[in-house]
Amino acid sequence: MITLATDFGQPYPAAMKGVIARRTDATAVDIGHEFRRQAPREAAFWLRFVLPEFPPAVHCAVVDPGVGTDRQALVVRAGDHALVGPDNGLLLPPARALADGDGIEVFAVRVEEPASDTFHGRDVFAPVAADCHEVGIDRLDRLPALVRTHEYEQLRLPEPAIRSDGATGEVVAVDGFGNAVTNLPGDLLDGRDSVRIDGDEYPVVPSYAHAEVGTALATVGSHERVELAVNQGRGEEAFGVVTGDTVRLRW
Amino acid sequence: MITLATDFGQPYPAAMKGVIARRTDATAVDIGHEFRRQAPREAAFWLRFVLPEFPPAVHCAVVDPGVGTDRQALVVRAGDHALVGPDNGLLLPPARALADGDGIEVFAVRVEEPASDTFHGRDVFAPVAADCHEVGIDRLDRLPALVRTHEYEQLRLPEPAIRSDGATGEVVAVDGFGNAVTNLPGDLLDGRDSVRIDGDEYPVVPSYAHAEVGTALATVGSHERVELAVNQGRGEEAFGVVTGDTVRLRW
Amino acid sequence: MITLATDFGQPYPAAMKGVIARRTDATAVDIGHEFRRQAPREAAFWLRFVLPEFPPAVHCAVVDPGVGTDRQALVVRAGDHALVGPDNGLLLPPARALADGDGIEVFAVRVEEPASDTFHGRDVFAPVAADCHEVGIDRLDRLPALVRTHEYEQLRLPEPAIRSDGATGEVVAVDGFGNAVTNLPGDLLDGRDSVRIDGDEYPVVPSYAHAEVGTALATVGSHERVELAVNQGRGEEAFGVVTGDTVRLRW
Repeated sequence: MITLATDFGQPYPAAMKGVIARRTDATAVDIGHEFRRQAPREAAFWLRFVLPEFPPAVHCAVVDPGVGTDRQALVVRAGDHALVGPDNGLLLPPARALADGDGIEVFAVRVEEPASDTFHGRDVFAPVAADCHEVGIDRLDRLPALVRTHEYEQLRLPEPAIRSDGATGEVVAVDGFGNAVTNLPGDLLDGRDSVRIDGDEYPVVPSYAHAEVGTALATVGSHERVELAVNQGRGEEAFGVVTGDTVRLRW
Repeated sequence: MITLATDFGQPYPAAMKGVIARRTDATAVDIGHEFRRQAPREAAFWLRFVLPEFPPAVHCAVVDPGVGTDRQALVVRAGDHALVGPDNGLLLPPARALADGDGIEVFAVRVEEPASDTFHGRDVFAPVAADCHEVGIDRLDRLPALVRTHEYEQLRLPEPAIRSDGATGEVVAVDGFGNAVTNLPGDLLDGRDSVRIDGDEYPVVPSYAHAEVGTALATVGSHERVELAVNQGRGEEAFGVVTGDTVRLRW
Repeated sequence: MITLATDFGQPYPAAMKGVIARRTDATAVDIGHEFRRQAPREAAFWLRFVLPEFPPAVHCAVVDPGVGTDRQALVVRAGDHALVGPDNGLLLPPARALADGDGIEVFAVRVEEPASDTFHGRDVFAPVAADCHEVGIDRLDRLPALVRTHEYEQLRLPEPAIRSDGATGEVVAVDGFGNAVTNLPGDLLDGRDSVRIDGDEYPVVPSYAHAEVGTALATVGSHERVELAVNQGRGEEAFGVVTGDTVRLRW
């Protein structure tokens, strides 16, 4: 199985699927191609959330503002999984989640002159993902194009600051419902009926429909993080936040 | 084969695909993940239209404003098909279409404490869909988590009122082209060259391109219902309607 | 393998997948269903770009403003590939690319009265695509519904005019990033640091990130055509162009 995650929209991912189908019979699974464009950190958050649900697979992820510069192409082995994508930090948070405490191995890809400077999804990452699948995730070192490296971009998702009377974090992603997902651990809300967020008081509920329709609320999303939402509405609008904004909780 | 239909956008459905791939080799097929959010009735209309095209399959459908409340999770057997989703009526119209006159069997799912209160697509419905596929649609009663029930939410799509001089129905869905699909049977337009809709006269044509580009028209869509459309334009805008609006035909 | 490309949005393509799954075990692959609506020429450009990446397959492509009129349904054999879709020119540019210099064979489909006048994707093209897959791309003449024809709509993508001091072409597509793709050959930019576009001077760079964030630029896209772009922005807006607009280069 090879999964595909990009910010490409359409039809570029189809070209990647064609390249893969020429090289392997592996099933190609779309993770999504509408990740926020040019935003590797937000995509990294989502991939860390989604990829651990999968059985062992090769995950090809491309959110790559630096395409065509001298940034490296990487393959990361993490447990029974491999990740393939640009060296901009995108692969690291999901790789650490997939490794689940074990180490990861990072390989730089020796890239021959690619066919284009603007579409490495087709010209570099898809063929490498197919090659990784064919050789086997536990035998990546047999691929002559892969060279172990210890030099690559780190990307750690931001850590919140937690105090006795509150916590400060940030919005790490907004989903299609408009729910603003923060990096604040969900257990901060344990036992609370309400919480002060950026100065105003909001109810804390176990899920959206526990508040009246249209009510702004705080809940714990499926990522086990504090989520700012509106029952049947858009939390990002009610709270006036976008990805990267600071969120201050007080109790 | 397991089909997936949600209002989740991305990347949540990918988490469901991962859960399914861990449990079964069944092919996962996306019906669509951009159903109008929080609108089970509109999704029910579309599923009734689309699912009968499929060979026997398990259909996992999640448009679920009540996630995390005490609404039940259901499995419905309908002919050679099974449907899995929330107990809010969503599954019933497609189930009746798939049963094609035969009865349906409804099961409540005994849900252990799910991992989240906000993402039962991943934590409840996807695993149950995989289990249904593995046990076989004709042996659902062997799944210990399923309990036959006769108590569940009914949802019948609205019936139009038909008179000798006209008919009153409603818009049940708007498609991506902006075509407003009504619940009025297409044969009401048989033999007519034009029809009065909400007070104005419009041409009746066999398909869009039989009218001039930009012309508002009535036609019979592929759902065999009256459809309000514009050739190469958006019917919802020309007719000023949204899902749920009343539509009055006169002749 | 059967690929699917339409301007249908959702959920209509799912009905096509159901029809195909009833008739064949072929893997169905989505090329994309958000092609610009009612714009066969833009879709033809993208299909010419994407389909040659695939191994031998049946490609079902439906962008079909004339559905339900007397326009023909076509099957085109091009090398090891077959294309199925409406006779409005859509299939010809990708067919010529897939044939790669060899000839193509065009068949008209004898269509029985289809179930609808508005959804031939489900009622005509998907079943024919499945039949082509089942009979085999090198044995299409065994399908009784197919009749060789030499009468069909031509569609050639526009050719640019190239002079010693400049070139005139047009925008043939805008991608999801807002990059405006022209029909001007990329080698026109060879060795240039900048180029005059519609009267203003812009840098020529090997890929987006070689310009400052927010800078309007010209580059050579993965289609080997001149592309008007903005690093991490939208070229269509910066250059004020839409598909079909004329683009004048001077040097």
